[in-house]
Amino acid sequence: MTATPSRYRFLLIQGFRLPADSPYLHRKLDGPKEQTVMDYPILAPMLEGVDWEVHGGALTTYGNWPVENRQEFMHSGLARLPIVREACESGKYNAIVLLGGGEPGFHEACEIARPYGIPVSSCAWSQMHVATMLGSRFGVIDLAESHSSYYANLILQHRMDRRCASIRLIYFPHDRPGCPSGRPLHEERAKARAGERSEAVEEAVEQAVAAIEEDGAEVIFMSCSGLFWLQPFIQSRLDEMGWEVPVLHGYKCAISMAKAMVDMGVTASGLKYPGDRPGRRRRKKLV
Amino acid sequence: MTATPSRYRFLLIQGFRLPADSPYLHRKLDGPKEQTVMDYPILAPMLEGVDWEVHGGALTTYGNWPVENRQEFMHSGLARLPIVREACESGKYNAIVLLGGGEPGFHEACEIARPYGIPVSSCAWSQMHVATMLGSRFGVIDLAESHSSYYANLILQHRMDRRCASIRLIYFPHDRPGCPSGRPLHEERAKARAGERSEAVEEAVEQAVAAIEEDGAEVIFMSCSGLFWLQPFIQSRLDEMGWEVPVLHGYKCAISMAKAMVDMGVTASGLKYPGDRPGRRRRKKLV
Amino acid sequence: MTATPSRYRFLLIQGFRLPADSPYLHRKLDGPKEQTVMDYPILAPMLEGVDWEVHGGALTTYGNWPVENRQEFMHSGLARLPIVREACESGKYNAIVLLGGGEPGFHEACEIARPYGIPVSSCAWSQMHVATMLGSRFGVIDLAESHSSYYANLILQHRMDRRCASIRLIYFPHDRPGCPSGRPLHEERAKARAGERSEAVEEAVEQAVAAIEEDGAEVIFMSCSGLFWLQPFIQSRLDEMGWEVPVLHGYKCAISMAKAMVDMGVTASGLKYPGDRPGRRRRKKLV
Amino acid sequence: MTATPSRYRFLLIQGFRLPADSPYLHRKLDGPKEQTVMDYPILAPMLEGVDWEVHGGALTTYGNWPVENRQEFMHSGLARLPIVREACESGKYNAIVLLGGGEPGFHEACEIARPYGIPVSSCAWSQMHVATMLGSRFGVIDLAESHSSYYANLILQHRMDRRCASIRLIYFPHDRPGCPSGRPLHEERAKARAGERSEAVEEAVEQAVAAIEEDGAEVIFMSCSGLFWLQPFIQSRLDEMGWEVPVLHGYKCAISMAKAMVDMGVTASGLKYPGDRPGRRRRKKLV
Amino acid sequence: MTATPSRYRFLLIQGFRLPADSPYLHRKLDGPKEQTVMDYPILAPMLEGVDWEVHGGALTTYGNWPVENRQEFMHSGLARLPIVREACESGKYNAIVLLGGGEPGFHEACEIARPYGIPVSSCAWSQMHVATMLGSRFGVIDLAESHSSYYANLILQHRMDRRCASIRLIYFPHDRPGCPSGRPLHEERAKARAGERSEAVEEAVEQAVAAIEEDGAEVIFMSCSGLFWLQPFIQSRLDEMGWEVPVLHGYKCAISMAKAMVDMGVTASGLKYPGDRPGRRRRKKLV
Amino acid sequence: MTATPSRYRFLLIQGFRLPADSPYLHRKLDGPKEQTVMDYPILAPMLEGVDWEVHGGALTTYGNWPVENRQEFMHSGLARLPIVREACESGKYNAIVLLGGGEPGFHEACEIARPYGIPVSSCAWSQMHVATMLGSRFGVIDLAESHSSYYANLILQHRMDRRCASIRLIYFPHDRPGCPSGRPLHEERAKARAGERSEAVEEAVEQAVAAIEEDGAEVIFMSCSGLFWLQPFIQSRLDEMGWEVPVLHGYKCAISMAKAMVDMGVTASGLKYPGDRPGRRRRKKLV
Repeated sequence: MTATPSRYRFLLIQGFRLPADSPYLHRKLDGPKEQTVMDYPILAPMLEGVDWEVHGGALTTYGNWPVENRQEFMHSGLARLPIVREACESGKYNAIVLLGGGEPGFHEACEIARPYGIPVSSCAWSQMHVATMLGSRFGVIDLAESHSSYYANLILQHRMDRRCASIRLIYFPHDRPGCPSGRPLHEERAKARAGERSEAVEEAVEQAVAAIEEDGAEVIFMSCSGLFWLQPFIQSRLDEMGWEVPVLHGYKCAISMAKAMVDMGVTASGLKYPGDRPGRRRRKKLV
Repeated sequence: MTATPSRYRFLLIQGFRLPADSPYLHRKLDGPKEQTVMDYPILAPMLEGVDWEVHGGALTTYGNWPVENRQEFMHSGLARLPIVREACESGKYNAIVLLGGGEPGFHEACEIARPYGIPVSSCAWSQMHVATMLGSRFGVIDLAESHSSYYANLILQHRMDRRCASIRLIYFPHDRPGCPSGRPLHEERAKARAGERSEAVEEAVEQAVAAIEEDGAEVIFMSCSGLFWLQPFIQSRLDEMGWEVPVLHGYKCAISMAKAMVDMGVTASGLKYPGDRPGRRRRKKLV
Repeated sequence: MTATPSRYRFLLIQGFRLPADSPYLHRKLDGPKEQTVMDYPILAPMLEGVDWEVHGGALTTYGNWPVENRQEFMHSGLARLPIVREACESGKYNAIVLLGGGEPGFHEACEIARPYGIPVSSCAWSQMHVATMLGSRFGVIDLAESHSSYYANLILQHRMDRRCASIRLIYFPHDRPGCPSGRPLHEERAKARAGERSEAVEEAVEQAVAAIEEDGAEVIFMSCSGLFWLQPFIQSRLDEMGWEVPVLHGYKCAISMAKAMVDMGVTASGLKYPGDRPGRRRRKKLV
Repeated sequence: MTATPSRYRFLLIQGFRLPADSPYLHRKLDGPKEQTVMDYPILAPMLEGVDWEVHGGALTTYGNWPVENRQEFMHSGLARLPIVREACESGKYNAIVLLGGGEPGFHEACEIARPYGIPVSSCAWSQMHVATMLGSRFGVIDLAESHSSYYANLILQHRMDRRCASIRLIYFPHDRPGCPSGRPLHEERAKARAGERSEAVEEAVEQAVAAIEEDGAEVIFMSCSGLFWLQPFIQSRLDEMGWEVPVLHGYKCAISMAKAMVDMGVTASGLKYPGDRPGRRRRKKLV
Repeated sequence: MTATPSRYRFLLIQGFRLPADSPYLHRKLDGPKEQTVMDYPILAPMLEGVDWEVHGGALTTYGNWPVENRQEFMHSGLARLPIVREACESGKYNAIVLLGGGEPGFHEACEIARPYGIPVSSCAWSQMHVATMLGSRFGVIDLAESHSSYYANLILQHRMDRRCASIRLIYFPHDRPGCPSGRPLHEERAKARAGERSEAVEEAVEQAVAAIEEDGAEVIFMSCSGLFWLQPFIQSRLDEMGWEVPVLHGYKCAISMAKAMVDMGVTASGLKYPGDRPGRRRRKKLV
Repeated sequence: MTATPSRYRFLLIQGFRLPADSPYLHRKLDGPKEQTVMDYPILAPMLEGVDWEVHGGALTTYGNWPVENRQEFMHSGLARLPIVREACESGKYNAIVLLGGGEPGFHEACEIARPYGIPVSSCAWSQMHVATMLGSRFGVIDLAESHSSYYANLILQHRMDRRCASIRLIYFPHDRPGCPSGRPLHEERAKARAGERSEAVEEAVEQAVAAIEEDGAEVIFMSCSGLFWLQPFIQSRLDEMGWEVPVLHGYKCAISMAKAMVDMGVTASGLKYPGDRPGRRRRKKLV
């Protein structure tokens, strides 16, 4: 951190926080910030010169397992709002980056932060926008039917349905109570990083290629942050195969778009997220 | 109620419940169910022969004023989910009707209820579907910028953007702390029902006509349930003017669609609201 | 039938009527109404409490074989209009249900009936609307190229092209003069109902699954009423396979939507089906 | 007519034929073909070198007044089909041009003629296609609410809704029994051609300009053939005003497109208008 | 050529002209016009009675190989503009036909020619418009990834994306310096015309069938004029297979549409290609 | 410039360069880079820490006046390509920022630069993408009919037509030979910056408000770089009026998106801008 304040003062907020004793917990909750942010090493260059902090997220209010279905996303979205409000009121940040692939509470966070002049960036929103800058259609890799159905709804809300080639599923749902244990992603990640064969990588590559060849995808990204670690693996595999297709990483996109909004001095339009008594009103709103 | 069980066994759930001591409370919370459901007299014929109960809604978790912005809708949506789950588990109902114009928690309620084979109906969803059966485009009458922005997002989620002529605003936001008091809708309603001139009626008619003449609306409905009482007034005024345009009432639509789903023996598709471990999975989801 | 008039007084009108001596005739033309309405047993619960009559349809004016191509649909559409007009003038009905999957004469019937305040419901229209309430996209099962091309045009007219995953064809065209005899559907139905293997069922299930897996269908229905009997068979087969996908029945949908319009007290918008000299006119019509 | 057969052998078929004693009849039914085709003088150059005949149309089957609403269009469509079939069977023509602005029976005529290798051209279809060649959006001038609603449905069927800026109405409905007499178009035409002020011209120009300035129209045409005579008047008025906007004439477009199809040796695709037992079938039809 | 001036006076302009010593040159540059226009024999009937000349095109400014990628198209587009301007100024022509499948400089040529009242026709534009007259969706056969990407952009500009089933690639890129030599199309053409097996024909038919069966194409055409010779071969193969699908030829379409515009007396709208100081201006332009 | 190389090494390339003796020249061609880049003071913070150079642009090849119509854009686009190629080959830059509002040569520049791994950013492209991140629809302020027609075509190519509320015109065309002199923008700018009333500002604000109130714009930007200086003036006027609507500056957007692409390590997809012989090819391209 520099003596003169940085151009960028960011708060990164985790999507949710599992209880410390959760059997489903596979990430570090405490310690230096660099250790609690997933995939920090690949983010480090982008964060250089940024004054950033990370909030560990709101404790899950529905149970001790990871977010996957619509109800759980609504829980996590609501739980995150007080953190956003507090961050805005603190005056310490000039942008908020919502971690978590399914961006729980994104719209509501924008509604909170906009009157403070603080832009909010999140993963689904930023990945879709970056992807459509780079190619005609994007392909999404998802990990469960329930999650992909929720995610399709995000795509609609961002008016990106015409730009989505498809959501392709690999079947690695998060473990949860009452369901037979699946193939834990953290084990896949460990294998891949150890240079071993990972079924998650294999299936993701297979689906990415199918999205390219059959569905018209020209850019690939993952929906759930639990899959973001796949990005360099899929990218290098596509490179090797000769597919010149960008594979995006949600955190990179979210941080980049936050920096861009700060640079340009903009936040979301007040007509998209109006205050309770806006200074000026339209008679007619078009959808 | 009949001795033999009715074909229809419905639970109507209010959108939210203000604390009994809220200065913003303008509806009856307790007493015979017929008195706690808004506009019961115009619903009565449709409910004849229906075994129905009404749940007063979840207590608001954000404050003591009515829902209007995105954050408040998220609060109300989440708060309503346990009621939905409990109703499903009770085995007493064969459909759930979500009252409240902005249908807080609708998608999540569908996710909960579908595995029980219980259809869920709500006001925005049913009004849009009924409206597009009757005309090419619908016009929505809304009461505040924040609410209409939230509502536009519902229209996107229901894939109805191409069918929405416009959202037209009359400016009657709900009173809320810290904002100057507006023109309370319950007073407008009282005037209208007393045969006096109501500004809300006048403005709503004016905007309905503008939606018809300028925006291409062929059917009209209101977004917020706080405006539903306007329905007969706008309808009769349009009739008098010679506009043969249906004006819908959210509760009528929601109840009708619930009855229809029960009659047809259907609920939402399991591919729209998949369970956590669905029996069968798609490799590819299109948005 | 009850002593007090029912809430619902419906006339069901067959799509067309083959001459009694037609070799292509495979349904009962006369007798108790319950025997002349196809699939009555599965409709019976919905019709309980409904005052209903059935009109056997207009005699075909193009020949003695079933409707399948565009010309034949135009013939049948026109032939049905006097029946609609007479029903409206009789004052006996408060809704008209057009039987026949390809809904010949639907728009014209709406034009006739609307000034009487009588809603008209038909199979294609109602199936599409019900399907889009339940899922993102519907898949249609059709029986001949000519019919599916006509049907695609109905989908366009109902502005449902974005919601149609695909029309999937099984090849069971109706027998007609000058063409080699095919595989008669009434024989397939007999086999299926007798618990024997029916190629029509097999192919329909195969195409339904393809529509789900490849085309994005989340709800399935049949286009031609000659295929409606497949509904319970496809539904149960999909259920067995673990696909939680609603399969609709055209008559159920049409009757349900008729009941709903009566309940809500609405008909089609006068701006969609204007009279010859409407009381009020728009300067501008948007498509 | 030339000794050697012309490259083009066309049959022009009137939209319908009023009885000779109809009080609503304002065009010549018999005599030299040049006198029975409306606006022949402006068509003459295009018809030079064409072997053409005109069929006076089928006698109206609904009454003795001009076609305007949906029912009447269905009547006229069906009545025209035998003429089309006979023309195809005669072997005398290599294209059929359907006169009549609302193109009654167009799709069905295509279905009939395609197996003969004979292209069919009609006014709405050809005007829309020509218009979108020339500009981004077209504006339509129509004469009655009922007609414009029917015409909007044609636009949908031709998948041109995104290209239609608006249908603008001037109010000159055809006279019909039981309705107060309006402002007969043939009188307006007489005035305009006599150099006198015509309200129809004035209103049409006003609406054309509104379509250009407000709705985004870049090309203008009329829906009903009863309005086609306005074409040169609107064109010259727009020219004078400085609007460089093509105004189309339905007959010119229909004849041009017929010539083009003959030149290119094409008819409509057999997948759009399949025969009853096509040689080859698709498993999947997309809408 | 006739003594009296023809109704049609056309200048056909080649897409580009390779230097006479180019090793990539495989067409005749000089001699009688009938020998320098590709596929003249199949165009001859359409050109009968037309006063036509052909311009050999502008010398390539980027190199001595054929146009294929975006840069090369921009070069060729710009180089062609002076030819267009000169043709307009000459007063000799009443329409300009741009040869070359990828229509380099089409929009700019329209901008130049419109004030002269001279319509401009070109291959991509006219093929798309003709195709959508004949069927719901068209399938394009292309020869290289770079070319198809450029061509997709043409489809967008002509607002035809919803009407394009797919671009299907056969891999016959033009030879160019620094790239290994491929399978030269002129050799394929020679084989096909000699009645020998041509891989280009085989692959094109295969892709055309895939476009029909899988992508929903109902009409087929080629993007690059280097592929136009395939038209009769693909057409006859589809005919043999029983697919009743029109296969278009770019030059036929472009000439036909030029004739049609001359017949109708229209050019592109001045609102689509406005002059530098138009007589009349809009305040609002819609995209 | 710093001792350690910056994270960002950018070449900014002007849209075109007027001859030094052009009477239409109103910007500084030589001197310190900070003086040749328009609006440098508002860009300065964003360029801090960036190693940047500016190229003065290619000399105009069509004349000595500014680019405005389609032909001129094609000239400027082609002329800029060698500069792009040279910059890529130099190895000095990791991103290229194309100045000039109408982004002449953008697609072709991407085609050139992508194989070098160098992202290209330009004004129209980046403004549209940024705008749609911030609001539902954008409104564009343009200065001439010809320019806005060209610009509409850019919007189509970027698949942003559904997101464009309207292009609103103020009438300040660039002076050009043979046309009466208009109201030079550099004089308007001088007035505005001097605190005097500028008609350009007044009209732009008026049109921005119309775009917001009537067309549904939620974000505003200018098309032509000659209008970019308006940005702070329009923004502050809207702020004063109570409209909470972001007004974008093209250069800010283009630089931000360049930085973002460098940060994320991405360029355009190789499937959007394929090389001449790509390593991997698709059989099917969707538009």
